[in-house]
Amino acid sequence: MRRSIATVSLSGTLEEKLRAAAEAGFDGVEIFENDLIASPLRPRRIRALAASLGLGIDLYQPMRDIEGVDDDRFRRNLRRARDKFALMVELGADTVLVCSNATAAALDDDARAAAQLRLLAETASEYGVRVAYEALAWGTRVDDHEHAWRLVREADHPSLGVCLDSFHILSRDGDPSGIRDIPGEKIFFLQLADAPRMAMDVLQWSRHYRCFPGQGGFDLTAFTGHVLAAGYTGPLSLEVFNDVFRASDARRTAADALRSLSLLEDGLSRSAGEEPAAAEGEGARGAVRLRRLPEPVRPSGFAFVEVAAEPSSAERVRVLLGALGFAHTRDHRSKPVQLWSNGDVRVLLNSSDPRLGHTWSGAASVTALGVSVPDPANAMRRAERLLAPPLPRRRDPAESALSAVAAPDGTAVFFCADGPGDGEPWLEDFSAPPVDGYREGGGARLTGIDHVGLLQPFDHFDEASLFYRSLLGLRPDTSVEMAAPDGLVRSRALTDPASALRVALHVSVLGGEHADTGGGAQHVALGCDDVFAVARSLREAGVAPLAIPDNYYDDLACRTELRPDTRERMREGGILHDRSEEGEFLHFYTPTVDGRLFFEVVQRVGGYQGYGAANGTVRMAAQRAERSR
Amino acid sequence: MRRSIATVSLSGTLEEKLRAAAEAGFDGVEIFENDLIASPLRPRRIRALAASLGLGIDLYQPMRDIEGVDDDRFRRNLRRARDKFALMVELGADTVLVCSNATAAALDDDARAAAQLRLLAETASEYGVRVAYEALAWGTRVDDHEHAWRLVREADHPSLGVCLDSFHILSRDGDPSGIRDIPGEKIFFLQLADAPRMAMDVLQWSRHYRCFPGQGGFDLTAFTGHVLAAGYTGPLSLEVFNDVFRASDARRTAADALRSLSLLEDGLSRSAGEEPAAAEGEGARGAVRLRRLPEPVRPSGFAFVEVAAEPSSAERVRVLLGALGFAHTRDHRSKPVQLWSNGDVRVLLNSSDPRLGHTWSGAASVTALGVSVPDPANAMRRAERLLAPPLPRRRDPAESALSAVAAPDGTAVFFCADGPGDGEPWLEDFSAPPVDGYREGGGARLTGIDHVGLLQPFDHFDEASLFYRSLLGLRPDTSVEMAAPDGLVRSRALTDPASALRVALHVSVLGGEHADTGGGAQHVALGCDDVFAVARSLREAGVAPLAIPDNYYDDLACRTELRPDTRERMREGGILHDRSEEGEFLHFYTPTVDGRLFFEVVQRVGGYQGYGAANGTVRMAAQRAERSR
Repeated sequence: MRRSIATVSLSGTLEEKLRAAAEAGFDGVEIFENDLIASPLRPRRIRALAASLGLGIDLYQPMRDIEGVDDDRFRRNLRRARDKFALMVELGADTVLVCSNATAAALDDDARAAAQLRLLAETASEYGVRVAYEALAWGTRVDDHEHAWRLVREADHPSLGVCLDSFHILSRDGDPSGIRDIPGEKIFFLQLADAPRMAMDVLQWSRHYRCFPGQGGFDLTAFTGHVLAAGYTGPLSLEVFNDVFRASDARRTAADALRSLSLLEDGLSRSAGEEPAAAEGEGARGAVRLRRLPEPVRPSGFAFVEVAAEPSSAERVRVLLGALGFAHTRDHRSKPVQLWSNGDVRVLLNSSDPRLGHTWSGAASVTALGVSVPDPANAMRRAERLLAPPLPRRRDPAESALSAVAAPDGTAVFFCADGPGDGEPWLEDFSAPPVDGYREGGGARLTGIDHVGLLQPFDHFDEASLFYRSLLGLRPDTSVEMAAPDGLVRSRALTDPASALRVALHVSVLGGEHADTGGGAQHVALGCDDVFAVARSLREAGVAPLAIPDNYYDDLACRTELRPDTRERMREGGILHDRSEEGEFLHFYTPTVDGRLFFEVVQRVGGYQGYGAANGTVRMAAQRAERSR
Repeated sequence: MRRSIATVSLSGTLEEKLRAAAEAGFDGVEIFENDLIASPLRPRRIRALAASLGLGIDLYQPMRDIEGVDDDRFRRNLRRARDKFALMVELGADTVLVCSNATAAALDDDARAAAQLRLLAETASEYGVRVAYEALAWGTRVDDHEHAWRLVREADHPSLGVCLDSFHILSRDGDPSGIRDIPGEKIFFLQLADAPRMAMDVLQWSRHYRCFPGQGGFDLTAFTGHVLAAGYTGPLSLEVFNDVFRASDARRTAADALRSLSLLEDGLSRSAGEEPAAAEGEGARGAVRLRRLPEPVRPSGFAFVEVAAEPSSAERVRVLLGALGFAHTRDHRSKPVQLWSNGDVRVLLNSSDPRLGHTWSGAASVTALGVSVPDPANAMRRAERLLAPPLPRRRDPAESALSAVAAPDGTAVFFCADGPGDGEPWLEDFSAPPVDGYREGGGARLTGIDHVGLLQPFDHFDEASLFYRSLLGLRPDTSVEMAAPDGLVRSRALTDPASALRVALHVSVLGGEHADTGGGAQHVALGCDDVFAVARSLREAGVAPLAIPDNYYDDLACRTELRPDTRERMREGGILHDRSEEGEFLHFYTPTVDGRLFFEVVQRVGGYQGYGAANGTVRMAAQRAERSR
């Protein structure tokens, strides 16, 4: 299908918006009127520029408050419309969006509104323009698509159809399946936007919080399925008003936007059970052919997590790993990377080695995720189709071909072939075990990497969520907010259906200088079956856990039935507690390296699926106290 | 009255919060439970610290989801409450906030809820604790203060009263005057918060967007008047959940908070017509005495606006001023400051003069506002009582005593005595006119400084609004949003009742790296009676106005009845147009110096009171184009 994006979804000048849309691979754009008015380019220049970039101008929008008014006012409105139709001829745009009247001038008179829409369409047809009529959710008289369609049917003019906007329809919580009954040729345009579920004034919600399909709470696949079933064959076009996208790099936003449409089209193609099979790599639905992405990726867990640190910090990371029962078992054949293992749990430590010329500068950090997948080549093809930036790999002759892409925060995501134990191919880049001369790990037994916590850049939180969703099939949880001493942090966890791979993304609710709220922390959470035993090993290795205030344990005594001796052991180990209807969660934190990187040890009891967010405030306050010591 | 603030209103650790509250001059605090739990200080240490800072602990809060439940659950809740009462004894807090139950466990049984509240209060009394029961606006069964009061009256225990929270009451849009009928001694606590009027889920609104009295849309003076009329004598306490305050410097927030209570108390004192007069500088209301601020300030206009620029930029400012009909008429006696005049309209230009050792570095900027007031000494006393930071003045022997304070964005606000023409005392710091050797201004006649536009730091937008409101009696308009090419800008204008002094504050809707959205622009808008004549003078002086796209004028032709020759003259002059029901607005912009400072020339026709915000997008896009040339 043809893919379009409204210029209002992107930042910059009109020219910058067009270039960004073309670079991402869009086929067309909707020109937002204010972008044109504010542009020094005249309509013919805009047309020529778009053409030279390979972009069609699929829609001019919006025309407002035209219909359903008294005759005098309609005459003036029609004059105004003629001027805009003439402009559209210059611009080379053949469809105009007309929003339902949202002013007090709109009369409660459907016959009048339909007659005026007919006249408007008749006038438009003189210019070769089609009118796509859309119900705004806050329209005065016409506020749902069914009403808009009744007026269009009543007006009955070949140059008049409806424009369907997923936000206006899905924000009303109705059943959109009636769309199937609209003749496809009368659906002139389809605008897609997702949005987080919010209970707020629909106009504010619409103007500030829309996001790309797959980033919010609406089921855009089902919605678009209805529109295709009706026989719609026009573009899938994104119209997203979003405060962050308006202010972010337009090229990144455009890539994020196209990723969202690729995933949507793929999803439509795969869910089209009732349709006849199309060519390989394609699906079909109604009258359109749908591009299909390479097969979905089903991760089976973390092959490894890589952390990087400067020499003195790397030594502190080694102490923590040792105390957590990891042993340094292998060295990378060509890079200053050590492999630390606790059973099958593996952490790579990338540290500066001046002899080799590799130097990590900056605070200790999680720099790469190794994701185990059945077919790394397929995963990489899918990632590239989803515009994930591939990472160049310096290939030393001895190295295996390990493919990686960059996540929106810069973290490398490696696709590693599944394999039993030490048989995984990526391990061949490392020396055979054991490495001599390094201390062995302690006795603590870990069961896996439970999750990784990554602080995200403010501008790219929704992008990151869609990145992991589309590349790895992770599903986002609902967001939660935690109060750090220096501001609120929003967290959203993503996990695959089998809970084999969990990533928790964090972001300050404010941008800029507040981006480091919560200490800018990144962490690796390690799973275990006996958190008390691991805590004991840590202390025996001479490492004190993050200090949790006694006040926390007093409060725990108030609100839980934990036995006093259990609480006492928790206090000794700095162990925190959370509970859900499904089970319990026990967890503690190591000290933080460089004020940024720490480890967590977690034990899930029963079916607990969370991340201990209820303890986030206590954890971040304790880390703040740790920093100021 | 006693003044308190909830620790949740401030950023930092509990210790930092207490110190900030004490430093601002609060008498007490509400301790938010999560702040205590996350603190390494044990309750007795907190008590001692507060005492050493001169702070009482006026409230411990909140206790949740206690009442109206089945017997088993209530027994557990009471056990939990006992532990907290014991903690309060350690803490030295004698009042606890109990919020109405917001869980599904709350039964629809008022008699049960009242009986359980009575038992809770009886238990509390064993510890010397009083229970203040508050209706949350989202409580399951009890969601308004009248219902809460019915339960408290029914329970009838001396240790049980109500807590009134202005947000929970005013967010429901009801009439709060019934509060007068509650016996004052049964109002145990009063929590004050303002909020902007928003149509959104009340819980989200409450948790993120509260602000200090005078910063939002509620009438806190009337509300608090009802509570005092009832006979309440406890503290005025601020409980404000606000994303920005949580992340900002606690000491500044605390000063902002105290300023808001000072203004509230002053307003209460002055509106207490029915009460007997109290001592000078005080009012009385019900049983309490109210502190009064020095008399309100009634500005009569701008005495001057000062801009500063580096030498090469200062030369560009001089060119603009000359082209706008200003002449360089005087020099400061001891500083590198030139006085430029157009009739009685005065702009000071502060530029670097290495001989004198004064160097302005950075982009050209508005650095000071001279505000004409009848009594500068009174204005300064009032400003100091409102915790406005006084600016140290280097007093040269020959200089007049000009008092100034720093606005939240660092702009100096000078209080200048009203005076006829050149008789104003502050002019004595300048050489007598005319200065030789400088060009005279052109023929453009200006009528005054219409307004000044100032970009605000993201963290201090509400603070700035309250600053101008409390110091100068300016009233805030509703906020508007304008789309710049690099993000949304929020604008709020403030003006005195006579519209003699107008200040427009702008802020990026996103913080941090987006703070310069819209070019970080600052500007001085000059009033005139003939914008076409001023535009012509500008061009004749060889200065082109900010280039407005032809597309703008085409659109103007669509939507207005302006005559073609008028539109053509507007196009030549770069003149923009806006309209309200009251009148019309014609305005143009000069080029921008250093990408930051520009002048605007405005003509108000009829009763137009706005600022041409509808043209903000076009202006900011044109300035962006200007920067990239």
